[in-house]
Amino acid sequence: MAFTPTDYLPYDFANRRHIGPSPKEMADMFEVLGVKDLDALIKQTVPAGIRQAAALELGKPMSEREMLWHMREVAKKNKVLTSLIGQGYHGTVTPPAIQRNIFENPAWYTAYTPYQPEISQGRLEALLNYQTMVSDLTGLEIANASLLDEATACAEAMTMAQRVAKSKATAFFVDENCHPQNIAVMKTRAAPLNIEIIVASPDALEADKVFGAIFQYPGTHGHVRDLTAEMEALHAAKAIGIVAADPMALCLLKEPGAMGADIAVGSTQRFGVPLGYGGPHAAYMATKDAYKRNMPGRIVGVSIDSHGNRAYRLALQTREQHIRREKATSNVCTAQALLAVMAGFYAVFHGPEGLKAIAQRIHRKTERLARGLEEAGFKIEPETFFDTITVDVGLLQQGVLRAAVKEGVNLRKVGETRVGITLDETTRPATIEAVWRAFGLLRKDEDFAPRYRLPESALRSSSYLTHEVFHMNRAETEMMRYMRRLADRDLALDRAMIPLGSCTMKLNAAAEMMPVSWPEFAGLHPYVPEDQALGYKQMIDDLSDKLCQVTGYDAFTMQPNSGAQGEYAGLLTIASWQRERGEGQRNVCLIPVNAHGTNPASAQMVGWKVVPVKCDEKGSIDLVDFRAKAEQYSDTLAACMITYPSTHGVFEETVRDVCAITHEHGGQVYIDGANMNAMVGLSRPGDLGGDVSHLNLHKTFCIPHGGGGPGMGPIGVKEHLVPHLPAHPLEDGIAGPVSAAPYGSPSLLPISWGYIQMMGGAGLTQATRVAILNANYIATRLTGAYEVLYTGHEGRVAHECIIDIRPFGDSAGVTVDDVAKRLIDCGFHAPTMSFPVAGTLMIEPTESETKAELDRFCDAMLAIREEIRAIEEGETDAENNPLKHAPHTMEDLVRDWDRPYTREQGCFPPGAFRVDKYWPPVNRVDNVWGDRNLTCTCPPMSDYAEAAE
Amino acid sequence: MAFTPTDYLPYDFANRRHIGPSPKEMADMFEVLGVKDLDALIKQTVPAGIRQAAALELGKPMSEREMLWHMREVAKKNKVLTSLIGQGYHGTVTPPAIQRNIFENPAWYTAYTPYQPEISQGRLEALLNYQTMVSDLTGLEIANASLLDEATACAEAMTMAQRVAKSKATAFFVDENCHPQNIAVMKTRAAPLNIEIIVASPDALEADKVFGAIFQYPGTHGHVRDLTAEMEALHAAKAIGIVAADPMALCLLKEPGAMGADIAVGSTQRFGVPLGYGGPHAAYMATKDAYKRNMPGRIVGVSIDSHGNRAYRLALQTREQHIRREKATSNVCTAQALLAVMAGFYAVFHGPEGLKAIAQRIHRKTERLARGLEEAGFKIEPETFFDTITVDVGLLQQGVLRAAVKEGVNLRKVGETRVGITLDETTRPATIEAVWRAFGLLRKDEDFAPRYRLPESALRSSSYLTHEVFHMNRAETEMMRYMRRLADRDLALDRAMIPLGSCTMKLNAAAEMMPVSWPEFAGLHPYVPEDQALGYKQMIDDLSDKLCQVTGYDAFTMQPNSGAQGEYAGLLTIASWQRERGEGQRNVCLIPVNAHGTNPASAQMVGWKVVPVKCDEKGSIDLVDFRAKAEQYSDTLAACMITYPSTHGVFEETVRDVCAITHEHGGQVYIDGANMNAMVGLSRPGDLGGDVSHLNLHKTFCIPHGGGGPGMGPIGVKEHLVPHLPAHPLEDGIAGPVSAAPYGSPSLLPISWGYIQMMGGAGLTQATRVAILNANYIATRLTGAYEVLYTGHEGRVAHECIIDIRPFGDSAGVTVDDVAKRLIDCGFHAPTMSFPVAGTLMIEPTESETKAELDRFCDAMLAIREEIRAIEEGETDAENNPLKHAPHTMEDLVRDWDRPYTREQGCFPPGAFRVDKYWPPVNRVDNVWGDRNLTCTCPPMSDYAEAAE
Repeated sequence: MAFTPTDYLPYDFANRRHIGPSPKEMADMFEVLGVKDLDALIKQTVPAGIRQAAALELGKPMSEREMLWHMREVAKKNKVLTSLIGQGYHGTVTPPAIQRNIFENPAWYTAYTPYQPEISQGRLEALLNYQTMVSDLTGLEIANASLLDEATACAEAMTMAQRVAKSKATAFFVDENCHPQNIAVMKTRAAPLNIEIIVASPDALEADKVFGAIFQYPGTHGHVRDLTAEMEALHAAKAIGIVAADPMALCLLKEPGAMGADIAVGSTQRFGVPLGYGGPHAAYMATKDAYKRNMPGRIVGVSIDSHGNRAYRLALQTREQHIRREKATSNVCTAQALLAVMAGFYAVFHGPEGLKAIAQRIHRKTERLARGLEEAGFKIEPETFFDTITVDVGLLQQGVLRAAVKEGVNLRKVGETRVGITLDETTRPATIEAVWRAFGLLRKDEDFAPRYRLPESALRSSSYLTHEVFHMNRAETEMMRYMRRLADRDLALDRAMIPLGSCTMKLNAAAEMMPVSWPEFAGLHPYVPEDQALGYKQMIDDLSDKLCQVTGYDAFTMQPNSGAQGEYAGLLTIASWQRERGEGQRNVCLIPVNAHGTNPASAQMVGWKVVPVKCDEKGSIDLVDFRAKAEQYSDTLAACMITYPSTHGVFEETVRDVCAITHEHGGQVYIDGANMNAMVGLSRPGDLGGDVSHLNLHKTFCIPHGGGGPGMGPIGVKEHLVPHLPAHPLEDGIAGPVSAAPYGSPSLLPISWGYIQMMGGAGLTQATRVAILNANYIATRLTGAYEVLYTGHEGRVAHECIIDIRPFGDSAGVTVDDVAKRLIDCGFHAPTMSFPVAGTLMIEPTESETKAELDRFCDAMLAIREEIRAIEEGETDAENNPLKHAPHTMEDLVRDWDRPYTREQGCFPPGAFRVDKYWPPVNRVDNVWGDRNLTCTCPPMSDYAEAAE
Repeated sequence: MAFTPTDYLPYDFANRRHIGPSPKEMADMFEVLGVKDLDALIKQTVPAGIRQAAALELGKPMSEREMLWHMREVAKKNKVLTSLIGQGYHGTVTPPAIQRNIFENPAWYTAYTPYQPEISQGRLEALLNYQTMVSDLTGLEIANASLLDEATACAEAMTMAQRVAKSKATAFFVDENCHPQNIAVMKTRAAPLNIEIIVASPDALEADKVFGAIFQYPGTHGHVRDLTAEMEALHAAKAIGIVAADPMALCLLKEPGAMGADIAVGSTQRFGVPLGYGGPHAAYMATKDAYKRNMPGRIVGVSIDSHGNRAYRLALQTREQHIRREKATSNVCTAQALLAVMAGFYAVFHGPEGLKAIAQRIHRKTERLARGLEEAGFKIEPETFFDTITVDVGLLQQGVLRAAVKEGVNLRKVGETRVGITLDETTRPATIEAVWRAFGLLRKDEDFAPRYRLPESALRSSSYLTHEVFHMNRAETEMMRYMRRLADRDLALDRAMIPLGSCTMKLNAAAEMMPVSWPEFAGLHPYVPEDQALGYKQMIDDLSDKLCQVTGYDAFTMQPNSGAQGEYAGLLTIASWQRERGEGQRNVCLIPVNAHGTNPASAQMVGWKVVPVKCDEKGSIDLVDFRAKAEQYSDTLAACMITYPSTHGVFEETVRDVCAITHEHGGQVYIDGANMNAMVGLSRPGDLGGDVSHLNLHKTFCIPHGGGGPGMGPIGVKEHLVPHLPAHPLEDGIAGPVSAAPYGSPSLLPISWGYIQMMGGAGLTQATRVAILNANYIATRLTGAYEVLYTGHEGRVAHECIIDIRPFGDSAGVTVDDVAKRLIDCGFHAPTMSFPVAGTLMIEPTESETKAELDRFCDAMLAIREEIRAIEEGETDAENNPLKHAPHTMEDLVRDWDRPYTREQGCFPPGAFRVDKYWPPVNRVDNVWGDRNLTCTCPPMSDYAEAAE
């Protein structure tokens, strides 16, 4: 027979799906780099001393079909019952149009955080809708664009209260009716900050003893209390009042603002976001205008562009992204953008009438359920309620809970004698009847006429969602087109490379994304009995095991739901360990100045003192200074935090020394895993001396960025630290929990797990090698035109490179902003700006990009350099040139053109697609105007017309 | 309690999801129309005499969630086994990136047929890729853009052969190795055309006795025969040789062109398109250049636009869409565009190396399977094969088949003593071992070394898929961006109204689309045992029952997979009934001149004589002429075919008379259901006197148009015709089958079923009423500026209206084309052009469009009228004006502008979005140039550069 088996690798083999450059392209790239092959390049780049001993072995890589088949088998092990557990998590209906057009649409889920507003107007509008919704429902002036979960939002509110309260008290009051996970996470947060937590009934509040207080509304067991009196008492004592409120309840009940609350927090999960075994969901925070500069998280605001047209952008950024290192009091730098967008659209889909109708229906069902139980003689509390009741069943508790499970329903175990029941919009009459049967009652839902039993004193009287966006025509055609229009305004990974240094915008493969939507992953309440989540358990155990192999650690916890949360959890773990061995006094954390901005903030949060360590002129840790500081603080050294490879994009050869010195002086080593994508398969932080690392699954392991969240930041630790990992939020442990849900945002984990299974050890390693190849290719092509700031001793960079724009400020008046905006004209998202060095661009192409795309980018950058040169040499006016006018819009093109360059030059610089040109919907956005005229809710058309004049 | 239940209808109630105008908008529309309410308008529009007696009752409408829950319960009744039945249907892997970004993406599935090439460049490129793939694989010069299924493609090839053969023979040879369903459908087609079908072994071919011959390659039982000798014999006899070939086999085996075949047909299902219990899939047809004008179906070709840039468009349209009424020999007017796009992308994803590797792997697996059986002593045939073997099991046939089912595998029953097995790319070693176990063998797949057993004489030696698009970088990032770029070039329903008269571009709701992707619907082979498809059975039975209630018929068949197929099936049914009652001589079909173009073509296909009937000046059937013709042909009248409401957009009051006259003279009444969306809930064709109707599920019942297919055209009949409905393709019946699969394209049916269940009777009726409201609103707003050609006696139109553009030809030199292209500048797909009256536009807004969108369209049309007026009055040059230069592109905007109107006027006429402007990627396409320089495969870049010069 003529044939021999072809050695062709099908498209869905890892090496073709995730690896951008084709073999032919790679050969061409080696030539440009002057290396023989990839091995040679890696040898030049990654110091031999840090290379891992053995190749990564993770079993035979699966095809997409095998992985999906396997994933289905695992999914089947999760049992999807109807959970009426409540406690902040509720069944909800995700409108299919939102699922298809937002949640499963790469135009939305592959977008980056909207730091470049001109290419993010769609997401920014969607997030502004969300903020407006939160602001309206809570009755507070300003809302942020979401936080990680309700429990961390409570903790953030607590520390924010401490910042803004005039009271000098050091205690914080926590309503005993708060959800237990909220209390647990606040306790974790409070301890290292020396905040005393007082948990008690609101009746026991002594306002003058605290700087703030938080109340759950409705309470975790269903009680609804008008908190106006408590707020007044707190204000009299110059303390801050916080309400953790269910936004669905706020559709019927008096809003926190009307009760005088200063801050409101809560979860918007039940606004159309699947349960997902605990996440991801968007938590909200809203506050009074007076406190806006103290609010953590991102805030979308309204401004104008250079033509005076309305433009959205992130507001008050000085408070936020650039976390002030030593003064930081929060390390929040991720939102749950994709989920906030979904929740906002849920409100757009339903409008105020729809939300009110849904809330009423939930309540009426709860009232019928209660009446059925009462008529049979059961004692229920509270007397009035929204969606939650608690039933005293005495010794029968276990029997009722078990009977309910047999009926396909999970109820909540409350104490030893009570059972909690919370209904939601998905509750059907059959569910109510099933609950009754679990109590031994054979009743029909239809026997009960609709009634209301809401507390008269706490009814809402104000209107909400009055903005026109919540009164759109809700025909699906219109909704679909609105979602498409917003998506089209943005530039995401589905159209072009996003070469953001430190952010790893790599492919999120379709096969990896699919299982996230499956009911077996999406439909589980985070507190279901373990035997209903065996699929999750298998996945989490196996993923942890594989991550241990990748990193050289001994155990992983999935609880932290962002990278910064991971840092914080890691430091808490170290602190707990230090305390246990009697070294609780250790509170110094050495952090090199090239660290991520969140590092010092996280250290602050565990109550440590941050001691900066210098870098040398090559951007590497100054070992002399490091040793000196370690010796100076030898008695109090708790830990050091380093990033590897460094944020300067270099594999430092001294990393083992740094670890050894730290250990010598009694400290633990935290290796920030943000750049793990440059190490997988080549080097293991656990082998280098690290005791703890977090991994950004949304970077290295393919969870998409979602336009600014969700993220996942699990941490790996060495054996000795395992007992000190964060506890389950509902269980006691040596260390407290850091998130509301035991596994953070577990419904994202199929993405990372699927990725690893399809790549295998060799595939993952190849991804790392090609990420390094791609970065070095860009560095080489740009060298000469631009200065590449930091390289290793063989002149190579790691997975990213920093180029210097500062010289052009003097020579041509060109800023890093000008270059970034001009790249939009070329069809690119800008690289990371001014981090870690002001006035520079940090470029990270990732392994997913093809040489063709890298060349398109390099051509654009080189053309921009020529434009700068023309200014430098006086050929072009320093103010009236394509760089200063960038980005160019269709508005520019259609207007009279009086520029000294042509439309063609302005709009179609090298790199720009011709037919498929991306047009930003606005010209350059005026940030200063926006912060001076702060508006963070949807402005009415009339307002806007005035503003633009 | 203060609350009373709100009467708010949530967004997902039918009346908000599918009904465009809000209640407020409707009130405003009534004012414009001068009617009190919707009842009043309907009373004016729909004659009392044709209204149905009782309101439509279809049970309580379901919410999206209820429908999906119910759909899951039904889906579970389908058992998804591994089908190794073969017979033209194969397991395949749909790349997840294609599933997400094409199949589940409204940008692709809501598009219309690419008759307006300027807004269809993305789809046209994708279809050109598909054609190039077919042309390459078959080795024939020209391929069309797909046909409905392989069996109908065989039948089309047969009649095409008769058209082009110089032989005067009337018989047609059919290889006995053809798939049985292909033979059955060809027999059905042949009978009324008096073609004698000779089924025999190729060895028995007598070429001089036939005008053509068709061979299956490989044969249905696995035989691979080099057909070169047969082709030579046929050519010597001036007859035509046809090969029905499996495209996957052609990756290894000699292509039909190399054997001398004149025509090749086949199914591209196994190129990534799910089985779907039989459809939809794209069948292909390719032929020699000499026969291109005789090929049925759409053909995409390459041309240039007004700037000389490359542009794609449908080629040779004169042979196609405008089916010549009395001379028609094919009624094909739908392709399977969406599925052809998927198959084409499958080839792009894999490239020639990938396809070859897949084919080799399938073969090697088959060879191992065969060897295992042979070693155990089983007798298998043929000696050499590609993917199919047949095993002689004697008396054990039933035992083996049953044992296989127990192993989760369906094998094929061949005769009474043999079993057929066909492997595919999804076959795993475990499957091979399961088959062995069904034969009583315990073997391991790994025990068999890879070998080949392909027929040496029929190995392929030529290369294929040499064009660069099949050699793209296949990293998923690149593929994803390519799919997005193509999608963005097109204007589909997800961005703007497509007001195509007679085509009903209504909402395809996301909830309705979701189940189509579920494995329980997507994974079934069409010939599985009935007890594996009980979910399908329940759906089809219930859907049929509901369609009977809607139409007043007694039974439905789902077999026809397009509207035209439905017409043809309906007429066959009538003909069979006439024959049975001894009236076989009846062969005259009365068709009014306002009928759909497919009507006369369908009548031709059943061997009838078409007798046209006049229309009066109001566009209605001329009753006098109708009666006269009926009397004239009283002895031979077979049927009449009418469209209701007429294609002139009017409810004719005489419809009952027309039916009565036809019946009086022994004829049957075929009522074309293309406009059923104007009747649902108001009037039933079965009540009016219809004996048969087809329904376009892809129009009235929400199956998306897919950019030019899939369609579904089930027919409803009165009781007496039920025995004459098309038979199952593998079973005997009074009438033969019309499609390869018993239920046509059943995996689409969840869409229509879901729609009906969520709408209920009242919702469906409201949709009809609002469709009429929207059409009348447009007619009223445009009246004055344009003449509305036909109205009912109260001055109303039905669900669409025709406006006359002819006067502007004389007055301003403006054609219907100019208006259509100018509408692109306004952000709209043009209405239907020059049908049913040349020089007119037929506008159908559907119920899904909001008043806001209708107003945007009317504003655009009125502005265009003003532009025409300016020409008429000499204010604007007759040649150099926005209408003649339309559509405007970014290229126009960026170039030097020497037009007598501004860029603003050119590019942003009323209707056009500002920020969200849709830009066509090319200027006006030159159709004549394209047909003169016909290229229907992807042109290399070099060719193109020359062409443009």
